[in-house]
Parts: sequence; structure tokens; C-alpha cells
Amino acid sequence: MTLQQLNELLEGEIIGSTDVNISGIGDIENATEGQLTFIRNRKYARYWENSSASIGIAAKNLSLTPKDNQAIIKVDQVDLSMIKILNALAPKPPVFDMDVHPSAVVDKSAIISEGAKIGAGCYIGKNVFIGKETILYPNVTLLDDVMIGHQTTIWSGAVVREQCVIGDACIIHSNASIGADGFGFVPSPDGRGLVKMPHIGNVIIGNGVEIGANSCVDRAKFGSTVLGDGTKIDNLVQIGHNSILGRSCVMAGNSGLAGSVTLGDGVMIGGSASIKDHTTIHSGATVGAGSGVMADVEAGKTVLGYPATDARDMLKQWVALRKLIE
Amino acid sequence: MTLQQLNELLEGEIIGSTDVNISGIGDIENATEGQLTFIRNRKYARYWENSSASIGIAAKNLSLTPKDNQAIIKVDQVDLSMIKILNALAPKPPVFDMDVHPSAVVDKSAIISEGAKIGAGCYIGKNVFIGKETILYPNVTLLDDVMIGHQTTIWSGAVVREQCVIGDACIIHSNASIGADGFGFVPSPDGRGLVKMPHIGNVIIGNGVEIGANSCVDRAKFGSTVLGDGTKIDNLVQIGHNSILGRSCVMAGNSGLAGSVTLGDGVMIGGSASIKDHTTIHSGATVGAGSGVMADVEAGKTVLGYPATDARDMLKQWVALRKLIE
Amino acid sequence: MTLQQLNELLEGEIIGSTDVNISGIGDIENATEGQLTFIRNRKYARYWENSSASIGIAAKNLSLTPKDNQAIIKVDQVDLSMIKILNALAPKPPVFDMDVHPSAVVDKSAIISEGAKIGAGCYIGKNVFIGKETILYPNVTLLDDVMIGHQTTIWSGAVVREQCVIGDACIIHSNASIGADGFGFVPSPDGRGLVKMPHIGNVIIGNGVEIGANSCVDRAKFGSTVLGDGTKIDNLVQIGHNSILGRSCVMAGNSGLAGSVTLGDGVMIGGSASIKDHTTIHSGATVGAGSGVMADVEAGKTVLGYPATDARDMLKQWVALRKLIE
Repeated sequence: MTLQQLNELLEGEIIGSTDVNISGIGDIENATEGQLTFIRNRKYARYWENSSASIGIAAKNLSLTPKDNQAIIKVDQVDLSMIKILNALAPKPPVFDMDVHPSAVVDKSAIISEGAKIGAGCYIGKNVFIGKETILYPNVTLLDDVMIGHQTTIWSGAVVREQCVIGDACIIHSNASIGADGFGFVPSPDGRGLVKMPHIGNVIIGNGVEIGANSCVDRAKFGSTVLGDGTKIDNLVQIGHNSILGRSCVMAGNSGLAGSVTLGDGVMIGGSASIKDHTTIHSGATVGAGSGVMADVEAGKTVLGYPATDARDMLKQWVALRKLIE
Repeated sequence: MTLQQLNELLEGEIIGSTDVNISGIGDIENATEGQLTFIRNRKYARYWENSSASIGIAAKNLSLTPKDNQAIIKVDQVDLSMIKILNALAPKPPVFDMDVHPSAVVDKSAIISEGAKIGAGCYIGKNVFIGKETILYPNVTLLDDVMIGHQTTIWSGAVVREQCVIGDACIIHSNASIGADGFGFVPSPDGRGLVKMPHIGNVIIGNGVEIGANSCVDRAKFGSTVLGDGTKIDNLVQIGHNSILGRSCVMAGNSGLAGSVTLGDGVMIGGSASIKDHTTIHSGATVGAGSGVMADVEAGKTVLGYPATDARDMLKQWVALRKLIE
Repeated sequence: MTLQQLNELLEGEIIGSTDVNISGIGDIENATEGQLTFIRNRKYARYWENSSASIGIAAKNLSLTPKDNQAIIKVDQVDLSMIKILNALAPKPPVFDMDVHPSAVVDKSAIISEGAKIGAGCYIGKNVFIGKETILYPNVTLLDDVMIGHQTTIWSGAVVREQCVIGDACIIHSNASIGADGFGFVPSPDGRGLVKMPHIGNVIIGNGVEIGANSCVDRAKFGSTVLGDGTKIDNLVQIGHNSILGRSCVMAGNSGLAGSVTLGDGVMIGGSASIKDHTTIHSGATVGAGSGVMADVEAGKTVLGYPATDARDMLKQWVALRKLIE
């Protein structure tokens, strides 16, 4: 890519000039000639002087001077520019030689819409519906009565249990488990064991949702476990039965919701945080990494720690505790 | 289901009457006409007055008045009644058109007992034994010398490594890993690396055990990692090599046992809790969610926090810490 | 095995004698006649007097007296002796009747080197390279352009995404996910949703690396997520995109690195610990179990707690907190 081609993509403002063709991307400390780099803020800007990168994509407010045969493209939002460039440079995803691989087992009652691809070794049960241009990589399992929307991607090893519903434009990563039984047991009448609570509900996942590798979303006892449109779930995340997540929530790796948790819209859950059953975290709230939430969280509030409390209070507690030993 | 059919199932006491046929279940705040709901305790009872549910299944000690064309069925234990109803209403599990799908690879030395079902894409290694009426959903892998009891269910994507033993009436959820190598390494004699400790033991899982989706039970160094009868493990749980779990233990999501942990009978481990290697948690003890247990726990005791200590003391510590900053 | 055969393997010093053939291994409290046991230190040595084990493999510095028909073999390092014995006694791994199972789907452009074994139901995409004597157990998925070195073992259910590279003599355990998209999103320009950051990099895993069951290593945004030679990862571990791990690092179960974390060489991360994004843990540092690391850690230092701090300071904080409520 030339400087001009890049700027057609980004519609930014060019400072300086370079005739080098861009062949890759590097971080600012390590980028070499022929690479472009991203300069989001002052922290990265101070490395620019010594950088060998040929082009820097920089935030508008930074004042940076390109050296000979170097250029800066100033943009409104560096992250959005990065997305454009990465999409332009992305290698082709794995190739399907045919729409439905002959080794896939597809029940004759299943509906596979136009442009959908079914990889080798997939299993598609009875009455499954698969939308247009949806891609199942090899060794995906969809049990009976599953519905998958259009342009959704399911990576290898993922399992979607019977009756679950996944929307359009979702990405389900490898080895994710959607619709396993919720975890519920009742002491047996003789007090000597546990009786399994049946989970006869399902999971309903909206549009534009991403579920990370090896993450689990359990089916509801009755009714549905629900993930709202645009919600993004990282790897190794547990979502308990009957939890209801709003739109555009984010849960980072190793975090978990016990059963019947409610998240509003735009809730952020940090990595390794866990949320008690039957609690509600209202819209726009943030739970810090590693926190253990044991009570409802108000809209827009940030909580932190174990047990989670107002983040500023928790930071004060941490300071107080350090002072205690001085 | 009519009111009378329901009560034949529950053997409770009917108050009021309704001629509505029950077509579904709702929680008490949202249930509509034609649905039944469950009223476990006072907390839920106060919603009854405004509920549109046609039937309420209620604990005996609650005084509730049905409105016109509404009924209450009073029962001894609401949760056990719920289990009966959910079992009665459960949709059919995924259907197998034949006992052993032709795409499954079953070694000729394996024994598949009467009534067992093997789904598409399963792999059954040498000398594997599968008991009567046991079900393997598609894409399950059982390596050589595995023994599975009767009426056990193994969901898609689960892997059981060589020589492991699973009892009767167990449920192994999707993408669970049974029998992977334990995690043990010894500094190499030259101090420059790590030498792998071989793990030549296996995993033995008793009867009526449930292992959650994407959970892991590692094989023993020598001897066996053992899960006692009736023990229930949630999703994304790690059980380290040589751990010994008693009967009817419960481990919630994202929790973990390091190696050589011993749990007595009826031990409860909360979500995201982790237990140090070589510790013993005696029968009837409870570990609170998010706790980090670093020492043995006495029988019947409840511990909490990180590091885990007596739960009442930990709650006092939390209060003291909050007071410190006031 | 006889006493003499054992000692030929261990090259230790025999005290006492026994004519019993060793048929198994037991821990010192439970070992019976015909079994050998390991005596690493004083803690175990005090059980020797009452042990029925026929042979004890003991550390040189312990003074232990064998009873009639019992023997002690004194060795320099008990753990290395244990490794030798376990390797000698290990049962045969699962057997392959043929090199490439006919039910495996192997693209014709893939290169399968001499002595490699491909199990039933595996999928091998375009341009994949598999080294000599590498073993893929049934139902492994390798997508396009993956490179696997020599003598590597990949257990069932593991998925390696396109363009990822795994070295020689590695072990990838069941249901591990290598190369899923990193977790990164940018608020959409209208502020009403999240735009996915493409992850066009890959994962590069060195030689002698072990990845536990159901663990996840995410691909880089650009460039590579890197695991250095000899690094050992336990089960259910999350390694975020663009993290760089040095040589011989150890991460225990349920732990996690957020994105762009750097580990030096020989870093030890305890179980359930989590590390904030963009932090560096320098060579030889140790992170205690359950810790939450929010800042860089100096070389050789041990940190503990949440938020993680110098381990001795954290232990003092815990003591101070306990005193506060007395």
C-alpha cells in the first residue's frame, strides 16, 4: 500500500511524504522501514522521534514531525483507522471447496440457506435452520431445532444444544458451549443426595454477538437465557442459566455470572470478575477486573474489589490497608 | 395440563379453581394467563396479588388467596414440585435415527451394550466399554480402555482420555475434558528447563455425577483422581490431578482444585473459588464464592475470602476495613 | 520390577533388601506390600516406620531403616527418580491402526511428514505442515496454513486456527483453542455499539511447550502472540492477544493474561491469578495464586494478593486485618 492508497482509506490529513510501499504493521518501538505504526496518544508520541516506521497514523491533537521519507496521517480516531487498515490487510479466511462438505452429517429436515457453508465433520440435527452466508467451520455440532441467523460464523469445536437460537452476524468461537443444562440441584427428600433440576428452557442470542473460545452459556430452567444485540463475551466466560444480558455488554476473560443475573445495556465486566446469582447490574455500570459482586449495582456506577464496592472507596480501603502496616 | 392433572402429579392441596389449560411457566412477576408460577417464600408471595398466572404452586406455610379462575396448589416442597413439572413438560431430547451412526468410528474390540446410542462423528477406541442405554451425542471422543457405565449421557465435544472410568447415570456436558495429564514439572538437572512429570494414573468418576461444560478433570500421577457418587460439577471447573472428592459435593462455575486436594462428603465450593494443593476440606464444609483456600477446613465449617477464613470473621474484617476509611 | 531392576534405573544406593516384585505405586500412608513409595522429605519420612510399602525411594539426607523384606533406595533427587519410574511403568498410549485414518479429512495441499499419525475425524486444512512423528488424536481441527513441528502431540478436540505455528515436542491438550480472535472492540462512531477490532496476526508457540485442556491462546491484532520454549500452561488458562511469554514460564489452572502482557523467562503464575493488560512481569518473578496483578513486577520478585503487592507486605496486611477485628 502506498501513502496515497492508505489515505484514501482513512480520509485523514497527510504531513510529510514517503515513497515506500507499506508491507506491514509494527508497534512504534519496533516498527522498521516499510511498516506503518499507530500513535494513539502522547505516551506513544514520544517514541516517534526515534522510530523507523515509514508512516505513522496519529491522533489529530498530537504534534509530530516526520523525518525524511516518513509521513504522518492525522485522523480523528486512531482505533477506527486501525480497524480499516487491518480489514484491508486481513489474509483470506480458511477456504471452503464446497458449500456442504460430504463428511458433514446434515439431517434431511434441516434448512441450509443460500450461501451457507458447512465444514467437514459438522453435525446438523433435525429441523435446524441455518441462515444465508452463515459459516460453520469443521467439527461444529448443532443439535435438533437450533436456529442460526444470517452471516454468522461458528468456529470449530463449538456445540449448540437443542432449541437454542443465535441471531445474525454473530461469531461463536472455537469450543464454546451454548445451551448446556443450568446448574441446579435440590436436596433429595431423604437428605442423602441431590436431585437434578431439569432445564427445559433455551438460550437466545441476539444479533452481532460474539462468544469467546471455550465460553459457556447455559440454557434456562424455563424461558430463556438471553444475550442482547451487540454483546461481546471473551474466552472462558461462564453465563449461568436464566441470566439476561442487555445490548452491547462486554465481559472479559474468565469472568462469570451465576444464575439469574441481569445486566442492563452497556455493562462492562472486567476479567476474572464474578457476579452472585439473582443480582442486577444496571445499564452503563462497570465491574473492575477480579471483583466479586454480591449485590445490585446502580446504573453508571463503577465497582471494584471483593466484595465489590464503589471503586473510589475500594481504592481508599487498599490505601488504608497499606498504611496500616507502615 | 389441567389443574387436576397437575395436582395428580404433585399430590398437593388445591385452593380455588380454574378451567384454564396450562401451557407454560412464568416467574411470578411476568406470568400471564395460562401459565403456572412457583411461590417458594414470602418474598415471592407478595407478588401473587397482582399476578395473572392461572396457577400458583406454593409452599404450605404461605397464606395466599386465589382470584377468580385462579388456583393455588399447596405443596410440601416447591423445588421438588418444580422438578416434577419440568420433567413432565420437558421437550424430547435430540433424536437418534439409529443406535450407532455410520459415521462414528468404533473399534471392533469395543463393547457397546444394549440400548446405547452413539452419535455421528464419535470416536470409540480399543477395548472401550459402554453400558446399557448410555447416550453419546455427536462428536464425542473416548480413547482406548475407557469404561462408561449404564444410562450415562455424554454431550457433544466431550473427550475422555484412555483408561478413565465413568459410572452409571452420569452426565458429562459438552466440551468437558476428562483425563488430561496432570500439571507437574520438575526443574531439569541443569536448572535450565522443566521436565514433565508423567501422569500414568486415571480418573474414576462414581455414579450420578455431573460434569459441567468445558470443565476439566485431570488424571492422577499414579493411582486415580476420584469423584464420589452424586457429586455435581458446574462449567469451567478445574479439578487437579490426584484430587479425591467425596459423595454429593458441589463445585460452582470457574472454581478450581489444585492437585491432591481432598474434599469430604457434601462439600460446597462457591463460584470462582480456588483451593490450594494438598489441602483437605472436610465433610459438610462450605467455601464461599471467590474465596482462596490455603489451609485445611474443618467439617461443617463455612469459610470465606482471600485468604479464606471463618466466614463470620471475614465479614467482620470487611466491615472493619470499610470503617477504616470513614 | 525387582529391587535390582529399579536400582539399575535410578542408580541410587540400596539399604536393606526385598524379594518382592513391585507391581504398583502408592503414597506412603496407603502403600501396601508389593508397592513402592516416594519419600521426599521429613514430612513423609515419619510415616515410613508404619508403612507396608516394599520399597521406599528416599532423599539422600533422610535416615530411614527398612524392616524385614523392605528396602530403601537413596537417590539424589526423588522427583527425577519418580519421573524415571513413571515413564518405565507408563501404559502404552492409545494405538493407531494406520497413519492417517480414512475418516480424517486432509486437504491435498497439506504435508504430513514421515511417522506422523492423524486420528479419525481430524480436519487438516490447506497448506498445513505436520512434522515427523507428530500425533493428532481423533477429532482435532487444524485450519489452513497451520504449521506443527516434529514429535508434537495434539489431543482430541483441540482446535488450531489458520496461520498459527506450533513447535517441536509440544503437547496440546484436549479442547484447547489456539488462535481464536483477540478480544478488542472500539465504540462505534455513533456511540451506540461496538466495532470489532480485526485480529490478523497469529500465535507462535515454541518448542517443548505444553498447553492445558480447554485453555485458550488468542491470535495477535497484528504480529504474533508468542509462547517461548519450554513454557507450561495448565488447564482453563486464558492468554490474551499479543501477549509475549518467555522461556520456561509456568501458568497454573484458571489463571489469565489480558492482552499485551509480557512475561520474562521462568515466570511463575499461580492458579486463578489474573494479570492486567499491557503489564510486564520480569524474569524469575512469581505471582501467588489468586492474585490480581495491576502493575509491572520486577525480576525475581514475588507478589501476592489483590491488588498484588510484595508478598511479605501482603502477608503483613492480612495479619493486620485479622488483628483489627480482635
